[in-house]
Amino acid sequence: MSSNNEILAVAKKARKASYILAQLSSKERSAAVGAMAVSINKNRTYIKSANAGDIRKARDKGLKASLIDRLILSDKRIDAMIDSLNEVENLDDSIGDLVEMRRRPNGLVIGKMKVPIGVIGIIYESRPNVTSDCAGLCIKSGNCAILKGGSEAIDSNKAILRCLKEALRDTVVPQDCLHLITQGGRAAVSRLLGLTDYVDLIIPRGGEGLIREVVKRSRIPVIKHYKGVCHVYVDSEADLNMAHKIVINAKVQRPGVCNAMETLLVHKDVAWRFLPVVFNELRSHGVEIRGCAKTRKIARYVKKAVEKDWSEEYLGLILSVKIVDSLKEAIDHINKYGTRHSDAIVTESYDNALKFLKNIDSACVYLNASTRFTDGYEFGMGAEIGISTDKLHARGPMALEELTTYKYVVLGKGQIRT
Amino acid sequence: MSSNNEILAVAKKARKASYILAQLSSKERSAAVGAMAVSINKNRTYIKSANAGDIRKARDKGLKASLIDRLILSDKRIDAMIDSLNEVENLDDSIGDLVEMRRRPNGLVIGKMKVPIGVIGIIYESRPNVTSDCAGLCIKSGNCAILKGGSEAIDSNKAILRCLKEALRDTVVPQDCLHLITQGGRAAVSRLLGLTDYVDLIIPRGGEGLIREVVKRSRIPVIKHYKGVCHVYVDSEADLNMAHKIVINAKVQRPGVCNAMETLLVHKDVAWRFLPVVFNELRSHGVEIRGCAKTRKIARYVKKAVEKDWSEEYLGLILSVKIVDSLKEAIDHINKYGTRHSDAIVTESYDNALKFLKNIDSACVYLNASTRFTDGYEFGMGAEIGISTDKLHARGPMALEELTTYKYVVLGKGQIRT
Repeated sequence: MSSNNEILAVAKKARKASYILAQLSSKERSAAVGAMAVSINKNRTYIKSANAGDIRKARDKGLKASLIDRLILSDKRIDAMIDSLNEVENLDDSIGDLVEMRRRPNGLVIGKMKVPIGVIGIIYESRPNVTSDCAGLCIKSGNCAILKGGSEAIDSNKAILRCLKEALRDTVVPQDCLHLITQGGRAAVSRLLGLTDYVDLIIPRGGEGLIREVVKRSRIPVIKHYKGVCHVYVDSEADLNMAHKIVINAKVQRPGVCNAMETLLVHKDVAWRFLPVVFNELRSHGVEIRGCAKTRKIARYVKKAVEKDWSEEYLGLILSVKIVDSLKEAIDHINKYGTRHSDAIVTESYDNALKFLKNIDSACVYLNASTRFTDGYEFGMGAEIGISTDKLHARGPMALEELTTYKYVVLGKGQIRT
Repeated sequence: MSSNNEILAVAKKARKASYILAQLSSKERSAAVGAMAVSINKNRTYIKSANAGDIRKARDKGLKASLIDRLILSDKRIDAMIDSLNEVENLDDSIGDLVEMRRRPNGLVIGKMKVPIGVIGIIYESRPNVTSDCAGLCIKSGNCAILKGGSEAIDSNKAILRCLKEALRDTVVPQDCLHLITQGGRAAVSRLLGLTDYVDLIIPRGGEGLIREVVKRSRIPVIKHYKGVCHVYVDSEADLNMAHKIVINAKVQRPGVCNAMETLLVHKDVAWRFLPVVFNELRSHGVEIRGCAKTRKIARYVKKAVEKDWSEEYLGLILSVKIVDSLKEAIDHINKYGTRHSDAIVTESYDNALKFLKNIDSACVYLNASTRFTDGYEFGMGAEIGISTDKLHARGPMALEELTTYKYVVLGKGQIRT
């Protein structure tokens, strides 16, 4: 499917299928997700051979080792895809529930019926497991998915989608609920982003460049996060042992992800006690430290942090460090330079904790825990289709409930407006 | 404030004020809205004299009578503005509530704190009461408002905003919570729509052209409805007396608004009994009827409905009528030509009612009631800041709860991720 008309045809098919899917029972949708897991397992060899082709091409093109690593579908990663589908199969969903029913003085009964969003476009890069993860969450929540993966993973994605659609053949879920755009590149995506009558939501996943491009072009509502500049603030009243563990975890446990810490803020009263030991351990993990003037007085090896550092998402073993005079300065710094993703305070003070939790304007605000927990699975949602730093509809990790909307149902006995 | 930099300065001020406003209590926010009502009442003469200037200019320009009518601030309309502020003052809000708290296996306690959205840009046309309605809802829900009204109402809007801001002077709510963009026209709006770091939500209110323009230019999430092509479907099992009253009400009680009926669908089994009487009454109200071939067989005066009629928002005394063979045909017609706003079925059949309510993909779906009830006040929300036909965050009428979002609060005891 390459031309503009083909994208339109796909979107129309998806819209049509979405009306059928929305009427199916939770049991029927779950069964389809279960069948998708079985199909992936049955077609391992086929998927791995398609994946081997993508990897060969990526090597020929000279792609970075880290990108190639994300591309690889080992048996372990295929197992993870299957596990994820099985978990999603068994989650509860709220589709069809009637909530907030109330009677108005004129006798009208007004409430909300929980319903799927409809047709969701997902635009992503690299990792081919996203294809099955998103397809599973969408089908389970009664939504049709139009997927557009990265060109490096195209054969892997095609193979996975083929298995998923084959699985639907023996279920009541129409095969047209799942689509993969495989041709047409940017023009195809642009076309998709304009189809407001057929697509209800766009979720872009990938680098900031991709996401900004999608936001710029889309006429369809988008939920996204651009990047994660996450902070840990070590308060004057912190348990410094706890703070030490949290700081190390937030920075080095997996530095290449959006919920890893990029900036450490430390209250001046504990900086001299806290930082030297932490710096030693950070450096033993290979972390480069860039600090404010005060931080640099503590250790000579600390490089100078420039203005740009405070808003940089390093996604690697670099940390910027600032010593602050007060909790207020920490809060102001985070609200100014942060990206409203995940920010933590370490403190034993109830007052300071409450101030931080109330004043930080981020999707996830932590007290005495690592920012690394911002994740659908860790939050108990079973999986995630993305993370939002927007303030509308969904904040933080998004899964089944975030793929659900409502419509008002108004029950009357002939009421008219006067 | 005309230049790009001035818009940026306004947005920065609003963002800063939003952090202060978000920390105030419900009582403090309510008191501010109460003071705003008092101030409008105290400054009636001032507001009316500014309004007289706008009206004079509109007449000089030769604006349509209907547009001039919308512009006029009579004492009655000023009373309505005051009443609305007083009602909003007394509404409950959920800001600060902690909901959905749960303990994870690792001991983390995760929940949601209800919080204001932050800074909201509202772009609207004509009616100057929108200025105080929106300002009241925003302040009450802890949000800062950047308002951009139509140029015809500029002096009225300036006067109203001045009164509202003056009222804030004696409260703890910062005056910078309210702003009105008075200069710079389209360029100013374009600039505002790009300020993703300072503005969280855009609500456009007005004609379809204005709204499409806003959606095209905005990088900030937008909630809106383009238009309302609302349907009433009279089922084969309808109580025809009830259907008659609902159809007349939905079409003629106030034809110029988005929740008025534009298309009537009637099941073939009742068409001959139902339509002649209804048509007579509709015609006595001056309604022009355009119908499908079958409808035209019932009455010669029915004009031919062309394809375009099925998706037309007449906003006036025109009605398109189609006779359908089945409930399914009615549902398909509505989902194809409708705008996902408000659609009604009239039936005594439980089965047919349920099928309609479940299958119609609209913000508000009615059983045995007029579509004209889609309105924040009628839904019991006290007021409304707009109506959404989007599927994200809010559907249908939007008021305080729809101006509220949440952030995740995660409470730990030193948990790190392994």
